[in-house]
Amino acid sequence: MRQSQLFTKTRREAPKDEVSKNAQLLIRAGYIHKEMAGAYTFLPLGLRVLNNIMAVIRGEMNAIGGQEISMTALQEPEVWKVSGRWNDEVVDIWFKSELKAGGEVGFANTHEEPLTRLLTQHISSHKDLPRYVYQFQTKFRNELRAKSGIMRTREFIMKDLYSFSKTQEEFREFYEQCAEAYVRIFNRLGIGDKTFRTFASGGSFSKFSDEFQTVSDAGEDTIYIDERRHIAVNKEVYNDETLDSLGLDKTYLREAKSIEVGNIFPLGTKYSAPLGLTYKNEAGESVPVVMGSYGIGPARAMGTVVELLCDEKGMVWPESIAPFAVHLVELSGGNKEVSAEAGELYRTLTEAGIEVLWDDRDLRAGEKFSDSDLLGVPLRVVVSEKTLSEGAFECTERKGGKTQHLSISELQTRLTHV
Amino acid sequence: MRQSQLFTKTRREAPKDEVSKNAQLLIRAGYIHKEMAGAYTFLPLGLRVLNNIMAVIRGEMNAIGGQEISMTALQEPEVWKVSGRWNDEVVDIWFKSELKAGGEVGFANTHEEPLTRLLTQHISSHKDLPRYVYQFQTKFRNELRAKSGIMRTREFIMKDLYSFSKTQEEFREFYEQCAEAYVRIFNRLGIGDKTFRTFASGGSFSKFSDEFQTVSDAGEDTIYIDERRHIAVNKEVYNDETLDSLGLDKTYLREAKSIEVGNIFPLGTKYSAPLGLTYKNEAGESVPVVMGSYGIGPARAMGTVVELLCDEKGMVWPESIAPFAVHLVELSGGNKEVSAEAGELYRTLTEAGIEVLWDDRDLRAGEKFSDSDLLGVPLRVVVSEKTLSEGAFECTERKGGKTQHLSISELQTRLTHV
Repeated sequence: MRQSQLFTKTRREAPKDEVSKNAQLLIRAGYIHKEMAGAYTFLPLGLRVLNNIMAVIRGEMNAIGGQEISMTALQEPEVWKVSGRWNDEVVDIWFKSELKAGGEVGFANTHEEPLTRLLTQHISSHKDLPRYVYQFQTKFRNELRAKSGIMRTREFIMKDLYSFSKTQEEFREFYEQCAEAYVRIFNRLGIGDKTFRTFASGGSFSKFSDEFQTVSDAGEDTIYIDERRHIAVNKEVYNDETLDSLGLDKTYLREAKSIEVGNIFPLGTKYSAPLGLTYKNEAGESVPVVMGSYGIGPARAMGTVVELLCDEKGMVWPESIAPFAVHLVELSGGNKEVSAEAGELYRTLTEAGIEVLWDDRDLRAGEKFSDSDLLGVPLRVVVSEKTLSEGAFECTERKGGKTQHLSISELQTRLTHV
Repeated sequence: MRQSQLFTKTRREAPKDEVSKNAQLLIRAGYIHKEMAGAYTFLPLGLRVLNNIMAVIRGEMNAIGGQEISMTALQEPEVWKVSGRWNDEVVDIWFKSELKAGGEVGFANTHEEPLTRLLTQHISSHKDLPRYVYQFQTKFRNELRAKSGIMRTREFIMKDLYSFSKTQEEFREFYEQCAEAYVRIFNRLGIGDKTFRTFASGGSFSKFSDEFQTVSDAGEDTIYIDERRHIAVNKEVYNDETLDSLGLDKTYLREAKSIEVGNIFPLGTKYSAPLGLTYKNEAGESVPVVMGSYGIGPARAMGTVVELLCDEKGMVWPESIAPFAVHLVELSGGNKEVSAEAGELYRTLTEAGIEVLWDDRDLRAGEKFSDSDLLGVPLRVVVSEKTLSEGAFECTERKGGKTQHLSISELQTRLTHV
């Protein structure tokens, strides 16, 4: 895309009402816009990153047998009253409203109840199980405080997968498969080395759940990390009993602040029993389905990537989720030959399926470079009178700053072999 | 995908609480699930169709310069009070709620106000115009009555594009470009021949707007069609003055019920003036931006396709938006050679990038054919002992019912040249 056509602009100063680094950078770079406290619009560059993150997650969920659906935000009270979660004293983050046609309606903050009810129409026999159903869907949470930029908001897309299994054993097998998929996801997002599978409280229906916690001072959680085993324990269950049961030794644990980027959770029959999601086993007996839930917030993952991988100049996107692969910076200074060369390179790369942001704006080199660093596209390719005379483009990696002079064919090879 | 793994099932009987044909068929086939009146979940097959429709629309919007974003549903009252549209007596379809942190919040039923405000941060000069910004985003509308299945709901994804132009002339040029893009969209969705650009009321800021109306008895509107010019007039502006201004002759007009599948609307400076979206023209004067809005509801389009193209056996999807290109129906009756042949064909087509639903279930032929007709995949390919002995697959078009016996290479040629 031509940057002269992009409707968003960068700004020098961070917005005064944002304290978190991710929101400051994303707003300065024109990736997001704050509509109100805890609600952000994704602008073209931000939406590209968010879509790339969702594509990574979608691929991994499909690979473990996930079937994608899209549920409604609107919720009728009845199904939530069965589980006891309609009550504001039980769940204190509901947004509720009145139907003009009469009656109350809620905006979903999660989807266990309606999905469990939905599946009663499609599951009846042991032959119908196991099943794994997921969605990317907008959750609404009436948080008292919205902070941490796009990492904790009142409205956000959640990837929530729910597993439906015949037995605890079948459930556990998938639970571990999904945990491995989560490891692959966070590796692909570029934050795997700092993300730890973390033992956490399981609530009242399970001893433990598993969180995926990424070490960052911007985090709201505290964890204790065993680096050698690459696992951690959440402070909320950090006690001798937990450590003993996990075979962890306090001596080797390191305390750190962290961001919860994912969680996987045994639900047992908490929802299937009251909502009547049962199946006939081979003996013909009616048995409640064993469930689990598995969440990742793509925007929180995006905010975490910004927090971890940015530097003093701006964002540094991993190639896997960058809004563009190449930032083509044209420094023509009115030289038409240089502009033509930039246009030719843009067409060549674009036709080869490479995503290019072409800075064709009439601005000083310093402004262009400063914008380029802020935007954080992985590879900057400069076209100027100098590169024209040299017959090679100046290619600089945003991460690390390494510069190479590459011919067009060398550049294409570099881009198609990452 | 293997149909034995698909978690949804078909059902013989239409749900008793649905009167519309689209909802009856889509629910029977397991494409959608009704959560409450006016709110439907999209199940795997339904989501595939919806995504295909959105891909068609997205391609056409990008082709005319649209830049995609994603705005929030949550809305603070302030920006809507400026335009006067926060008031329930002015806009009677708001869902509103209370923030735990204090104050009211709304769930957007449209997005002119927040987008206009957003653009004040990015548009200041005539060099920043024109700009075209769109999204696929969930709207909430507190309709008194929800009816017509997925064609009029309380929660739905809308493609809403907004144009920002310097002058009326520049606006009109894009308005016609977008009208042409809409024609291409409805042609690609398979409903172009029954969809008419229709002159309609423009509200208080414009004499006319343009609707795209598809002839159907399931529609809520009434239009008067001039078949020769392939245009129509909405009943609400059907009078001598309108007909004269359009050069239409009553004698040649035909009355019909119709579904509004799209609309394009001149907004003038209705929102830009009060919200301060201005630009400096070449003379240095501050001028309000000229706006337009352009909407299509992908789910309503999907419902319209069902209403128009179904038959007594079920749905008939056009190839452009079908959930799968091929319904591979295996009739093995326990014959392992037939199963192996079906599996081989599935792999060959899938590896060639063709989307295949493989009915590998252990059911009678009659049940499989009846499900296949209901689901409406464009091409049914039967693998059985008979086809095995003949060395050719039995390929039947869902639309029209034409059957051919094709070898695997003939089948691949047929599928890659549509």
